[in-house]
Formats: sequence, structure tokens, C-alpha cells
Amino acid sequence: MASAEFWYEFASTYSYPAALRVAALAAERGVSLVWRPFLLGPIFAAHGWRDSPFNIYPAKGRNMVRDCERQCAELGVPFRLPAPFPAMSLLAGRVALVGLQDGWGEDFSRAVYRAEFGDGLDISEPTVVSAIVGNLGHDADPVLARAQSAAIKSALRASTEEAERRGIFGAPSFVSAGELFWGNDRLEQALSWAKRP
Amino acid sequence: MASAEFWYEFASTYSYPAALRVAALAAERGVSLVWRPFLLGPIFAAHGWRDSPFNIYPAKGRNMVRDCERQCAELGVPFRLPAPFPAMSLLAGRVALVGLQDGWGEDFSRAVYRAEFGDGLDISEPTVVSAIVGNLGHDADPVLARAQSAAIKSALRASTEEAERRGIFGAPSFVSAGELFWGNDRLEQALSWAKRP
Repeated sequence: MASAEFWYEFASTYSYPAALRVAALAAERGVSLVWRPFLLGPIFAAHGWRDSPFNIYPAKGRNMVRDCERQCAELGVPFRLPAPFPAMSLLAGRVALVGLQDGWGEDFSRAVYRAEFGDGLDISEPTVVSAIVGNLGHDADPVLARAQSAAIKSALRASTEEAERRGIFGAPSFVSAGELFWGNDRLEQALSWAKRP
Repeated sequence: MASAEFWYEFASTYSYPAALRVAALAAERGVSLVWRPFLLGPIFAAHGWRDSPFNIYPAKGRNMVRDCERQCAELGVPFRLPAPFPAMSLLAGRVALVGLQDGWGEDFSRAVYRAEFGDGLDISEPTVVSAIVGNLGHDADPVLARAQSAAIKSALRASTEEAERRGIFGAPSFVSAGELFWGNDRLEQALSWAKRP
């Protein structure tokens, strides 16, 4: 079966519509999908950025907000920029890895994006993340404890290093048939690529 | 009649497919189009960039080349990165303004993009620009002389200042019903916006 990787970062605005769209589109096309949470912070830091480029370059940031509003309106979902932006996504990324090991990571990831960019919640708050885990029917305390284990911490670090090694510089990204695709706008093309003969 | 502005810079890779696509799509939708050449250099300089972000950030640059190859392949046109990249686009921008005054600026603009990103020519070379003007059936020498007049120089400078004032930070950009859209990927949405009730 054709497969593609979906690389996402919870602080990333354009990963939100991508995360909401990708599963249905992959299923439609018969592409199996690997969800790969990672952190952009260390990759941006290597570019000399200590903040989101959307904050560093205000004109780019203003366009991003309006563009996300328009794109999300077409999708029929709300968009708001959470404060602070970008959110600290470390905890959510670690919990996503726990969830992906246990089979509920995709639902968790979509729920985090909806909480963050739909409801404007601060996903760095353990109470916000716990509530999402609880709403998925899981006992949050042991999940959050496992998210802080050495194994999960180093797994997220390894994913981030792998992303950088593979040339990923932004989110969402897709790797499909050995090629890198960047951005929510390339989701469809990346999935089609997975099926090329 | 609904109208939209197409803001483009001759050094910009993604302005190439946009320039080749925009006229037919605007005509199909009944949107009248205003072609607005401008320079990104002064806008990038205000960001602290003395070079293309695609050169400053090599991973981004590698993705841009491959992405343009894929996008242009879908369009059925060749793509190659000219050397040097980015091209010095000042002369072509000025000649485009002359051409737009005289009714051949759109054809000239498409021809410059094809020469630069299809054939890999250096569009900073007056001989390259002269050949394009000549191929369009115009006498190149007086056109190039007029392109270096104070009136045209200041018109291009004014366009660039207007772009910055209107929040344009990259190319191609579209202004449609008072809203800014950035990127070849937003061409269709920008044209649709012009027709909103």
C-alpha cells in the first residue's frame, strides 16, 4: 500500500487545517499515513530565529492570520490565533507520541489543534492537555507522567533531529515517495505522489 | 467589472507560473486585471535580508526548486533556476512599465519569465531584454532609453513603496476587493474574491 508521512508541529498554524484534512484525503486515495509530530523550535533556532517568523516579520504575520481565516472559512472551521503565539508545544508533542503508541494519537492531535486554533486555548497548560486526553476516554495522569519519561522525551528529540536531517524546515510537511512537500497547500499533491507508478 | 491587481517581481520564482496562468484565469472569471511590477529588494532589505531567503535558508531554497519543478511540470512548462539567482530585475521591471504604458507589457512580462525560468537566461543583461522587446515587434533602443528615464525610474520606485505600504512582503501577490493574497497558490482564491457580492 502506498504511504506518506505527515510531519506536524502543534505550534504551527497551517498544520491545523492540514491535520483536520489529511486523514480523510489519504483514506480516499488509499494512502496509508504515518503521523510524525516534531518540534520546529530547534530547527528555527538553527536559522537564527528565536521566535516565529510570523512574529519576526509583521507583514508576513498579518497575512498569515487573514489567510488562515480565509482557508479555515472554506473548510468550515473557526480560526483564531492563540495567545501567546506561538504556543509552547513541547508537552502536546510528547503526549502525541504516547497517544500514537497507544492508538489514539491522531484523535488527540486533531483535538489539540481544535483547542488551540479553534478555541484559542493555551496548549502549553497541562490542564488543557489533560482535559483533551480525558475527553478521549483515557486517564490523563498516567499519560502525562509517561509523556515526561526519558523514553518519550528522547523519541521527540529524535523525531526533530530526523526532520532536520531530512530537510524539513517548516510545518506541515509531507514525505511521499522520498520527496519532501511543504505546506497545507501541498497536501493533495503529496498524497498523489505516493501513488505514482 | 470586478478587478484585481497582480503584483509581481521578475526575480521571483513563483511569480513565473503565476504570470503564465493569471490572464486566462482572470478572463474566464470576468475579472479585469492590473499588472503591477515592483521590486522586492528594498522590501527584503527592510527585513534585514540582503539576499533571497531561498539563498539565506538552504533547506527552504532546495524545497523551492523542487517544488517549482513539480508545479511547472503540472503546468507543462520547464523550470530552471537561472544563475545568478536571484536575477537583478531592475531593468526588466522598468521596461515592463514602459510596455504597460504602451500596451505590450503583459506579453513582455510573460516573455521575461519564460526567458529567465524556462531558458535560464540572465535578465539583467540588456541584450537579453532587448531581444525580448525586439521579438515582440518593437524597436528596443528607444524602449530601453525610455526605461532609464527619470519618469520610469521614479514610477517603479513609487510602485515598490506602494507595495510596501499595502503590506506586500513577497511575490506574487494579489490585491482583490481590498484584501491581500500572497503566492501563486492563492491566485484562484484572489480572483474569486474579486467577484464576491
